[in-house]
Amino acid sequence: MSPSRPPIRPYVTEGVETVFDGKVFRVERVTRRSGSTGVARHYHRVACDDWVNVVPITREGRLLLVRQERHGVERATLEIPGGVVERGEDALAAAARELREETGSIARAMEPLGWVHPNPATHGNRCHAFVARDVDRVEEPRGDGDEELEVVEVALVEVPDLVRRGELTHALALAALFLAGIPAFVRGSIG
Amino acid sequence: MSPSRPPIRPYVTEGVETVFDGKVFRVERVTRRSGSTGVARHYHRVACDDWVNVVPITREGRLLLVRQERHGVERATLEIPGGVVERGEDALAAAARELREETGSIARAMEPLGWVHPNPATHGNRCHAFVARDVDRVEEPRGDGDEELEVVEVALVEVPDLVRRGELTHALALAALFLAGIPAFVRGSIG
Repeated sequence: MSPSRPPIRPYVTEGVETVFDGKVFRVERVTRRSGSTGVARHYHRVACDDWVNVVPITREGRLLLVRQERHGVERATLEIPGGVVERGEDALAAAARELREETGSIARAMEPLGWVHPNPATHGNRCHAFVARDVDRVEEPRGDGDEELEVVEVALVEVPDLVRRGELTHALALAALFLAGIPAFVRGSIG
Repeated sequence: MSPSRPPIRPYVTEGVETVFDGKVFRVERVTRRSGSTGVARHYHRVACDDWVNVVPITREGRLLLVRQERHGVERATLEIPGGVVERGEDALAAAARELREETGSIARAMEPLGWVHPNPATHGNRCHAFVARDVDRVEEPRGDGDEELEVVEVALVEVPDLVRRGELTHALALAALFLAGIPAFVRGSIG
């Protein structure tokens, strides 16, 4: 890597205040001072717990997806199973729980794919990704009581078409597929 | 695709109220009634403008990245150039503007890679992705006045290592690389 300038000097956080408190997330107003300019500014950000996402691969090598209503975009979207890591729960346990709740499935093995920042500009949390191998559907999905879920099974080779047709649009799901090495090849490879 | 159950019946939105209004985003409290159960509930979501992300490839086939302080995670993170689509601006123009502001570069051609939902559960907006080809650095990055930026040039084959080492963590950047067909191969391919 070839940086073009000296590294950015660290910021110092001088205060954090909660300015909105909802059930799923809070909004914080953080005061941070630049180490380079000495200027302090306020920034708003969303505070919430960590999330998990699961790439579930069946014994036949197919991918399990979940369709559910999403109130941000006001329609049902196709995603991979995932959700919030509950307090006192580790990410792996949350992944197995969400896989079972949302698809009615259990996996022979769960392997970590790493984690991503959903949006480092506005969110401090992480989204942990796992691949679930040799997944078996053992029951109907039940969700968490407020979710109506539809499980959709696709071949891995269908993923590029789902992305191209705008059926698979969730950035965190796409990031997990990226980490799992499943190619999009929507417009061919670059480079 | 093989759905396991009948499709989810649509929800109806019965009201939207702004409960927090910041400079970069608002929080809305939306009331939505399930078409299946008839039950109405309140949901909080983040309302903001669309975003753009750019995958800039130099004439030498290298990838331009940007390091900047991010107040969600309270540190400087490595990302691809991107930002907010301004009112009255189209996504392509915003992508070219952000590329120039954040890397001091112009591209011979910009091609759309599609768009993603940053988080359909909590955000209604889209993040549009473009690949910028034959990028030339013509000036120092200037940001938008409040940004301290460092431009970092890497070979495409370095991307998997940057991801594996946790240096490239922004889900929206990874989703754009996925759409561009740049492989992660962090843990090998699945399937």
